[in-house]
Amino acid sequence: MDPIASSGINRRVVLSTLAMLPALPALLRPIPAEAQEAPAGNPLPSWNDGAAKQAVLDFVRVSTDQANQSYVPPEERIATFDQDGTLWVEHPMYSQVVYCLDRVPAVVAKRPELKNAEPFKTVLSGNRAALAKLSMRDLERILAATLTGMSVEEFSTEAMKWLETARHPRWQRPYTELVYQPMLEVLRYLRDNGYKTYIATGGGQDFVRIYSQQVYGIPPEQVVGSAGATKFGYAKNGKPFLTKEPRLLLNDNNAGKPEGIHLMIGRRPRAAFGNSNGDREMLEWTGAGAGARLKMLVLHDDAAREYAYGPAAGLPDTKVGALTPALYDEARKDGWSVISMKNDWKRIFPFE
Amino acid sequence: MDPIASSGINRRVVLSTLAMLPALPALLRPIPAEAQEAPAGNPLPSWNDGAAKQAVLDFVRVSTDQANQSYVPPEERIATFDQDGTLWVEHPMYSQVVYCLDRVPAVVAKRPELKNAEPFKTVLSGNRAALAKLSMRDLERILAATLTGMSVEEFSTEAMKWLETARHPRWQRPYTELVYQPMLEVLRYLRDNGYKTYIATGGGQDFVRIYSQQVYGIPPEQVVGSAGATKFGYAKNGKPFLTKEPRLLLNDNNAGKPEGIHLMIGRRPRAAFGNSNGDREMLEWTGAGAGARLKMLVLHDDAAREYAYGPAAGLPDTKVGALTPALYDEARKDGWSVISMKNDWKRIFPFE
Repeated sequence: MDPIASSGINRRVVLSTLAMLPALPALLRPIPAEAQEAPAGNPLPSWNDGAAKQAVLDFVRVSTDQANQSYVPPEERIATFDQDGTLWVEHPMYSQVVYCLDRVPAVVAKRPELKNAEPFKTVLSGNRAALAKLSMRDLERILAATLTGMSVEEFSTEAMKWLETARHPRWQRPYTELVYQPMLEVLRYLRDNGYKTYIATGGGQDFVRIYSQQVYGIPPEQVVGSAGATKFGYAKNGKPFLTKEPRLLLNDNNAGKPEGIHLMIGRRPRAAFGNSNGDREMLEWTGAGAGARLKMLVLHDDAAREYAYGPAAGLPDTKVGALTPALYDEARKDGWSVISMKNDWKRIFPFE
Repeated sequence: MDPIASSGINRRVVLSTLAMLPALPALLRPIPAEAQEAPAGNPLPSWNDGAAKQAVLDFVRVSTDQANQSYVPPEERIATFDQDGTLWVEHPMYSQVVYCLDRVPAVVAKRPELKNAEPFKTVLSGNRAALAKLSMRDLERILAATLTGMSVEEFSTEAMKWLETARHPRWQRPYTELVYQPMLEVLRYLRDNGYKTYIATGGGQDFVRIYSQQVYGIPPEQVVGSAGATKFGYAKNGKPFLTKEPRLLLNDNNAGKPEGIHLMIGRRPRAAFGNSNGDREMLEWTGAGAGARLKMLVLHDDAAREYAYGPAAGLPDTKVGALTPALYDEARKDGWSVISMKNDWKRIFPFE
């Protein structure tokens, strides 16, 4: 049982930011529609001219031109995108982890025996110093209690309610509005050119599937994520249902990304997008195939408009955001494209 | 580890028919193309008029008519099909099991220590009486040895070679030609009406994905099947690859079918097709959703043109083919449609 992985948890991010969470206002706002149509002849209007934009344009050009030796038949046009930090904001905390913490009171109301048991007692106390000391094992117990033990429909209903009311602490907007406009344009542009776009996320597959169509134009069946087992059973009235179990089938991080892509898609992607070491193996595996391949990394180097972070943040000798220097070196050596949010993106969010 | 499940093995079928296998001729024949276009206005030309054909037509009519209260939005149009016995011939033995037995000599050539070890020694001996006595555990060892321990590309290459050369003992044709023409028409008809067609098979996902596009018009990413784990690693030259591991992630039979559909698709199907008790939970789960639902069972009652079999075969008081009487009763009670191969199908195979 390792449900923590199914939420793509980075413990440091969780603990260092628990104290930053404000009380969540309960205002309903609509989830934003998919990126608007791009102007004719300019499929990537939110991108500045530069190597990153050109890499996307070149890849689509050669892979869709039947006269080009790098032509890719339509059925092989698969593109995979990490979500957190690649398609939407992952700071100060993965939204799914916020969801789990917010769910604790409801879980305890149904299971009163947890009220005075740790780590639930600490979460309920709101004591931020104590929250910041929660162990990895504590977090696992919180995830198991809040993400499993209910039917798949109950989970969807609760998570959807939360998505409609929760607000990001910095922008005071639903998490589903904090998607990167330039990446929505890439998704649309690839689809317009026959690519099937997939999410390959360390986050929970069932969680992301709830909003993937509305937010990214990606149907639930094209979301690959960390996934737990379900258990088929019958209600008292004889009606069958599926219960979410605390047993991890796929930890869709690192090596789990290519393994999950093989399990769920069965083809090697032609294009892959990530932003951290957890995406490394997916990009390597994508790049190891023959023919046209696009490997891109989003670099979080824009503290003013979004965030600048990663192991190297604040260290003046490396400026690689969430990428370790080793991965950044690999990217340059193997011809991966690095997207600088600061320099390559005119606009970050659809609402700007 | 339960790789046997990943081949949808029915031990009785395997053992009772081991002796029937002829030596396989090595003639290459093309895999047949997808069903030809149906004549205008007659989408199911290989079906006789009757309740089964009408059930398909009615389902498509009401679910695609926006004025109908049973209208299904295009994004929810998911149809799942069992493979063995529903889309193609499963007698005298699942083709994938034949594949595994045929692979034993090549595996032993690479791993000579198996030559005198059981059950490989017995398989190599060709002693049919001894073969028929193999235990379930023996069969598991054969499947593990022949389906795992190689890269996903090596597996595909070997299985494709076999599919091109192996012949069914009765028709002396490639297994991939022994698909049911009326079901190809249903697949096509549903797709023409906006349905995404999926295979949900107890057979190995990696095996079926090799030919699903060519044979059924179903891309590999729309094949849900019994699936083993893979392991990401690096070759000596640094190139990453995935190795097939003998660890079962999904046993896509019985309760595993709805569980696998949730994992791989994330939506409840609107239509489901099966032929045996292994499909029961998939059909129940499909039928338990609201709105238009189609649940169909193929009844193998045509000994002349295909086979008549199942627990009830030869018992004159029940004629339910591979269906147990209990499931047949459930089908009638809950409004499932039973397809009689003998009465409902004008033609069985595309080559007829």
